Amino acid sequence: MGAPVEFWFEFASTYSYPAAERVEAAAASAGVALAWRPFLLGPIFRAQGWNDSPFNLYPAKGRYMWRDLERTCDALGVPFRRPSAFPRNGLLAARVACRFADEPWCPAFVRAVYRANFADDRDIADPAVVGACLEAAGQPAAERLATAGEDASKALLRAQSERAAALGLFGAPSFTVGDELFWGNDRLEAALAFARRAG
Amino acid sequence: MGAPVEFWFEFASTYSYPAAERVEAAAASAGVALAWRPFLLGPIFRAQGWNDSPFNLYPAKGRYMWRDLERTCDALGVPFRRPSAFPRNGLLAARVACRFADEPWCPAFVRAVYRANFADDRDIADPAVVGACLEAAGQPAAERLATAGEDASKALLRAQSERAAALGLFGAPSFTVGDELFWGNDRLEAALAFARRAG
Repeated sequence: MGAPVEFWFEFASTYSYPAAERVEAAAASAGVALAWRPFLLGPIFRAQGWNDSPFNLYPAKGRYMWRDLERTCDALGVPFRRPSAFPRNGLLAARVACRFADEPWCPAFVRAVYRANFADDRDIADPAVVGACLEAAGQPAAERLATAGEDASKALLRAQSERAAALGLFGAPSFTVGDELFWGNDRLEAALAFARRAG
Repeated sequence: MGAPVEFWFEFASTYSYPAAERVEAAAASAGVALAWRPFLLGPIFRAQGWNDSPFNLYPAKGRYMWRDLERTCDALGVPFRRPSAFPRNGLLAARVACRFADEPWCPAFVRAVYRANFADDRDIADPAVVGACLEAAGQPAAERLATAGEDASKALLRAQSERAAALGLFGAPSFTVGDELFWGNDRLEAALAFARRAG
């Protein structure tokens, strides 16, 4: 067993979707322990002067990203439809995922939220949509949403987002092994290899 | 033989270095024809409001890039030393590479320029350094530099950079197969696979 890998994701982030789909199997196959780390990218973007996604601010990059994401999802065999709104507000879903990160059902919830956004074009800011994702993961929606709305849950996500910034994260998905940072869905394999060597 | 791949590189671009080191062998092994396409990224960056490398404008991203580049070069087995100045002006080297792109010695020249910048910390804006790279590729430096300084050579690089922008390029290295764009050293394999299917 190598060192653990922390998987940092943001529900508004496009490339976090294929990463969330494949990270669990990839880590298991590499024999590396995995921790799910939802965080908010908004404060990090705002700190470097962006009030919108860089994919909207830089249209050539945005056009490329949508095409590249489509290819990436195709290659992975996961459904993809470009959402009618981007980026969507993933705050509520992130509070749920952060509060329940260690529960065995959490990865299924995370993937359900990504599919709602990037395959079914649903508004993941809507508590009813997040609730449906909880139910898809076998959870009582109203009860979990109430817990996610508690001050303690809000503080937990805030602290985790601050830790992300302190680790030097500037985009999502990212992977960390201790202080070692890997950015992008396409760095998952490098992060796992590093974790195996560091273990 | 699949469709040809065009390899777009900028001498100031950090990730173009490992790409230039591995592209020839990777294309040959995939059975895909390769065209070398030097271009200038400066005008594209300026058009989106950047007057410096994004790695300087966004320090967290820059810190990550240097570490990630070091890992990438290590894994590839190519020497790397962080240059004392970044980005360096690759205009003259790009004019040489553009004018002589189809010559069999050109890839060796390109790699010599990248090593001068990213392994030996030499100033590739200096004609003496570019001349040494020409000599390392078995070429008469003064004669080639004179040709690269002709108006026709300047116009050739300008037209190629305009074509890069028209193809939607926003960073380097990039790969194109017809109109299909792939961005980043880590997309080389995807570009080659696409070219094979398109052939």
